[in-house]
Amino acid sequence: MSGNTFGKLFTVTTFGESHGVALGCIIDGCPPGLALSEADLQADLDRRKPGTSRHTTQRREADEVRILSGVFEGKTTGTPIGLLIENTDQRSKDYSKIASQFRPAHADYTYMHKYGTRDYRGGGRSSARETAMRVAAGAVAKKFLAERLGIQVRGYLSQLGPIKAEKHDWDQVMENPFFCPDADKVPEMEAYMDALRKEGDSIGARINVVAEGVPPGLGEPIFDRLDADLAHALMSINAVKGVEVGAGFDSVEQKGTEHRDEMTPEGFLSNNAGGVLGGISSGQPIVASIALKPTSSLRLPGRAIDVDGHPVEVITTGRHDPCVGIRATPIAEAMMAIVLMDHYLRHRGQNGDVEVTTPVLGQL
Amino acid sequence: MSGNTFGKLFTVTTFGESHGVALGCIIDGCPPGLALSEADLQADLDRRKPGTSRHTTQRREADEVRILSGVFEGKTTGTPIGLLIENTDQRSKDYSKIASQFRPAHADYTYMHKYGTRDYRGGGRSSARETAMRVAAGAVAKKFLAERLGIQVRGYLSQLGPIKAEKHDWDQVMENPFFCPDADKVPEMEAYMDALRKEGDSIGARINVVAEGVPPGLGEPIFDRLDADLAHALMSINAVKGVEVGAGFDSVEQKGTEHRDEMTPEGFLSNNAGGVLGGISSGQPIVASIALKPTSSLRLPGRAIDVDGHPVEVITTGRHDPCVGIRATPIAEAMMAIVLMDHYLRHRGQNGDVEVTTPVLGQL
Amino acid sequence: MSGNTFGKLFTVTTFGESHGVALGCIIDGCPPGLALSEADLQADLDRRKPGTSRHTTQRREADEVRILSGVFEGKTTGTPIGLLIENTDQRSKDYSKIASQFRPAHADYTYMHKYGTRDYRGGGRSSARETAMRVAAGAVAKKFLAERLGIQVRGYLSQLGPIKAEKHDWDQVMENPFFCPDADKVPEMEAYMDALRKEGDSIGARINVVAEGVPPGLGEPIFDRLDADLAHALMSINAVKGVEVGAGFDSVEQKGTEHRDEMTPEGFLSNNAGGVLGGISSGQPIVASIALKPTSSLRLPGRAIDVDGHPVEVITTGRHDPCVGIRATPIAEAMMAIVLMDHYLRHRGQNGDVEVTTPVLGQL
Amino acid sequence: MSGNTFGKLFTVTTFGESHGVALGCIIDGCPPGLALSEADLQADLDRRKPGTSRHTTQRREADEVRILSGVFEGKTTGTPIGLLIENTDQRSKDYSKIASQFRPAHADYTYMHKYGTRDYRGGGRSSARETAMRVAAGAVAKKFLAERLGIQVRGYLSQLGPIKAEKHDWDQVMENPFFCPDADKVPEMEAYMDALRKEGDSIGARINVVAEGVPPGLGEPIFDRLDADLAHALMSINAVKGVEVGAGFDSVEQKGTEHRDEMTPEGFLSNNAGGVLGGISSGQPIVASIALKPTSSLRLPGRAIDVDGHPVEVITTGRHDPCVGIRATPIAEAMMAIVLMDHYLRHRGQNGDVEVTTPVLGQL
Repeated sequence: MSGNTFGKLFTVTTFGESHGVALGCIIDGCPPGLALSEADLQADLDRRKPGTSRHTTQRREADEVRILSGVFEGKTTGTPIGLLIENTDQRSKDYSKIASQFRPAHADYTYMHKYGTRDYRGGGRSSARETAMRVAAGAVAKKFLAERLGIQVRGYLSQLGPIKAEKHDWDQVMENPFFCPDADKVPEMEAYMDALRKEGDSIGARINVVAEGVPPGLGEPIFDRLDADLAHALMSINAVKGVEVGAGFDSVEQKGTEHRDEMTPEGFLSNNAGGVLGGISSGQPIVASIALKPTSSLRLPGRAIDVDGHPVEVITTGRHDPCVGIRATPIAEAMMAIVLMDHYLRHRGQNGDVEVTTPVLGQL
Repeated sequence: MSGNTFGKLFTVTTFGESHGVALGCIIDGCPPGLALSEADLQADLDRRKPGTSRHTTQRREADEVRILSGVFEGKTTGTPIGLLIENTDQRSKDYSKIASQFRPAHADYTYMHKYGTRDYRGGGRSSARETAMRVAAGAVAKKFLAERLGIQVRGYLSQLGPIKAEKHDWDQVMENPFFCPDADKVPEMEAYMDALRKEGDSIGARINVVAEGVPPGLGEPIFDRLDADLAHALMSINAVKGVEVGAGFDSVEQKGTEHRDEMTPEGFLSNNAGGVLGGISSGQPIVASIALKPTSSLRLPGRAIDVDGHPVEVITTGRHDPCVGIRATPIAEAMMAIVLMDHYLRHRGQNGDVEVTTPVLGQL
Repeated sequence: MSGNTFGKLFTVTTFGESHGVALGCIIDGCPPGLALSEADLQADLDRRKPGTSRHTTQRREADEVRILSGVFEGKTTGTPIGLLIENTDQRSKDYSKIASQFRPAHADYTYMHKYGTRDYRGGGRSSARETAMRVAAGAVAKKFLAERLGIQVRGYLSQLGPIKAEKHDWDQVMENPFFCPDADKVPEMEAYMDALRKEGDSIGARINVVAEGVPPGLGEPIFDRLDADLAHALMSINAVKGVEVGAGFDSVEQKGTEHRDEMTPEGFLSNNAGGVLGGISSGQPIVASIALKPTSSLRLPGRAIDVDGHPVEVITTGRHDPCVGIRATPIAEAMMAIVLMDHYLRHRGQNGDVEVTTPVLGQL
Repeated sequence: MSGNTFGKLFTVTTFGESHGVALGCIIDGCPPGLALSEADLQADLDRRKPGTSRHTTQRREADEVRILSGVFEGKTTGTPIGLLIENTDQRSKDYSKIASQFRPAHADYTYMHKYGTRDYRGGGRSSARETAMRVAAGAVAKKFLAERLGIQVRGYLSQLGPIKAEKHDWDQVMENPFFCPDADKVPEMEAYMDALRKEGDSIGARINVVAEGVPPGLGEPIFDRLDADLAHALMSINAVKGVEVGAGFDSVEQKGTEHRDEMTPEGFLSNNAGGVLGGISSGQPIVASIALKPTSSLRLPGRAIDVDGHPVEVITTGRHDPCVGIRATPIAEAMMAIVLMDHYLRHRGQNGDVEVTTPVLGQL
């Protein structure tokens, strides 16, 4: 299958460029009977939406999603769900520079090598704008998981550059523009970001995602382990350079007696596994963490080459997030939800829960 | 597709349990004309083989692979390649304890929940023994990549518990039982492992894998990015808890001016990207790093439950690696080679006609 | 992958119901550099469009397609192509009867059993209206095949109920509303259809599709043979009940000496194989034929049951094709083109480097 | 996925050439808990085995299958099932002629074009010998379908060249070497085959396959309809040139009032649909019919070319079936069973039926 589809039974296929006509998505495999409306998707889209605080890009996108199919009388029918977001903020601007240069740390150079051409307007397909559709599709998965299985998928920013969240209060996450669970660190983060913007530089971040209520048994060893598919999903998000499950890289220095999660009839005594043993969910919370690199678009000059191979100095003007990690929390949640949804269906089938009351006919 | 197949055009499907009759594998999609014999696979299998030093399990497996199809007159024909390794060291032993207990940090508990049954002999399908077939399949990919494209895939152990390799000499990697590139650290590692075995405990490790000579253009955004598929492949290896590409988690604290790899006509000036930009290879070395948890089988007692939910104390006797990371280097190489091979074929298909006139950059 | 995606490297994923907001499609894997505009798709859409003669349904659909992504400066970029057709003729009508009844030979009963619900308006997802998107996607494949490879995919109606085309003139196919290659039979067909409409009944048809210029070597044995994928594609079209390749069912009574296509240095002497040997294209024209059942929507009453299992008499009023086969020619062409496109890309990937020195035979 | 895998949740991947070391297969996705032994597979393999009557090839193959994995204590475990059949009758013979010639109606010419090489011994991968593995895998599917769902998949030869079965008695099918349900026609078939062998020619055949007890709801529109996947599966069998479902090509001349299967509370009144409506099973028997071409290997000379493009006269000596259709009944059954199994799992999930009695642990 081509690279713009994710999932095997719950599949999400997307299209759309940063400055094209629209972004779209087809969700195939959503079970019938789920109550669904645009409002259900809009909440998460608004969390990802640019321009909601001074710390993110000031590009203004309404990001209004329309459901074009697959829902009838307010409920999913089991047929594919078509989603569409029209691009509204396509400023006409001069693209001649970006067209002729390969910006450092961007996909300009590699897209050109792969395709022999590229839509350079705002990064085209390689722009993080495509993640809007991941968030919309993830919202469908999150709703199904919550309503049918009682699974809750939530994320938060655990580190912004050098600043680490030290306390963890889920109630704080939605109260600040960073999705930070430690209210005490928010002023520090705000000051850091203000200084960074002045400086013209950018910074990396770390996001954690947690799914609670996942039943044991999800995951398809040996290659499609739950954690392997999760790594695939999370690493496919723009700017992600690392993925951990459970203890992650701390495992390197752990001894077996420290790492192993002992069990008692009352439950596991720790969760270094991050909720996955042998590639299959254990019933504990699924815990993942990702590293996001700093934004590549900087107004500080950088050395690069142009399309003819000559050296150039690249300066990126315009509206950009100084920390792409800030808006990444809903995207990471979406990808985890999509993975869990897909594995639930692989384990249980697309219509395993359908209750049919229709009479069954034979042949006379 | 079910979970025991990896890849889309170069597909590897495996079977086999730790103490079953045999392990096997079907490689589908290997291009015709590649010279191939058992000896080509055996070299890597021998590197993974248990019992080659006192630091790994003393289980004795010949791990002799047979090619059953797909090769004619010494060359691949383009038809599927069947591989088989018969299990020779299946000691008859008393499995009654392992049958009735869920060992902590093992897949016993989750397999039981998923399948309602499990082959408990030596871990069955969840045993790392299945990785022998990954290594055999990876050897085919490595040979194709080397001979047709000049790509070299190599790995090494960069950290054993608290001990980090500090020097990097490729020539040393094959000279010690740890695949450690820093000869000075080898005695320290040996002493550490000896102490650990006495203690009865185990330890984690970190493995790095590098592919040199990869042409720019491989990777299928937006979901099947090269790094995302790599994360999938590497996280699917037993005991892996984290995957990094390039700067990995260091990106969190990097500023944009530090992270971005500037370009000059002579090449990239750094490789924080790890050879992947926008999910597509850049022509720089592909660099990945993985964290392996400590072995879960310990003779030190651990709390657990039995199949009826009663508390038990688990003690694992028998032959086990105190550090699964030690034998993981050839496995990680194999998975990276399989991913590159698959992406090469996917790219050749969709973009076989693309003429690219862009300059190809290396690394200074 | 879920059931609304076709293809492995050239994938077509569609959504949309008969009376929903819109129909849509994502084409993933189209190589970059193909000149493409809406007009290229519209020509085939207009051939399939209802209401172009008195012999098809009088539902009026503009079927105007928009390209939403994947095309930049008039050429494909290699990124996914999003297509959209808004439904314009959604008459508000009383659906209470169709909602409560299972019409004979329709998918009402089976959709209800599969999904436990159904969008009954105009048949919802099971309506042949979805084939508009197949035609649009097929037009992209046809253009690529024609421009890059010189492959021409064309179809025609070879039989309308009892009336068989006896002459074959490609130039006539586009000159009559039946896509019939035998001009002499057209008046007979018109009279037959007029009588049928008066009667209130419907009739089956046979469509043939031919691809000329296909290079030898396409097809992926043993399961994804070219003819097997073609059978899949053609049988997936609404109302199709049979698929033949080459001599098809005539092969049953043929002797080996009659069926085998002998070869001379000048070419094959016959084409009973239909251009496929061992599942791989031979260089001869690919020839397939399909049977389409008569339309199920009739104003003549039929026995059926309602959703509670009680007997009802069903009468379908409204606008329906008395012969669905009449508009099926462009759909069959589209599916054959999609299959060839997909196999071309699969072959280029796995065998892009193969040098073949074997003589290429045509047909005398 | 590459071309040697069939299915999405119940996947069958095969390898092996006619005169290679062995044939093999990996079944992935078989649910746990199915009682399974070699004997369960051997029965169907013996029905397909050559040399059981004078009307089939006298090649002697034991076709003894071994189960290498996926079964523990007599039951499937949910992990992949490895199967192996060693080739025993590999006569050493002179292959120089077949190596240098392209036999008419064989895959010699097309394999050479696809792969640039071929294993010419006995047809290599293109030999019908590979169908042994389809039969073995199909036997697993048949057993699951029968035991868990009460589905029975059976086939028969309905036509041998000009001779059509007119009566239908299931009890007769296993009583004669043709799998013919009409005992009265058997002597005629025997005489016909005897004459054909003397003549040196071959003949085509028609096989019907029927699945009874299939619940309504299986099939994944719009592309993976049950009938479309069935067409794919059946057309992928060697020598098949046509596939029909239900009324098949008779639909072309049927009127709607004749074709539509009316329903009453007691059941459907006919089965022109062949058990599939809108691509989904209706609860009626699934009925398919296939056309098999006559064997291409004839001792009567045929015109062909050699690898250098020169004209040659080809004569095939050795052991060949004069009617490949005779042994095709178990193969067609196998493919139908695999399709039904796959669709059952897609609808219900791989583990939808698993009953787990293990305690579920949380986290303290």
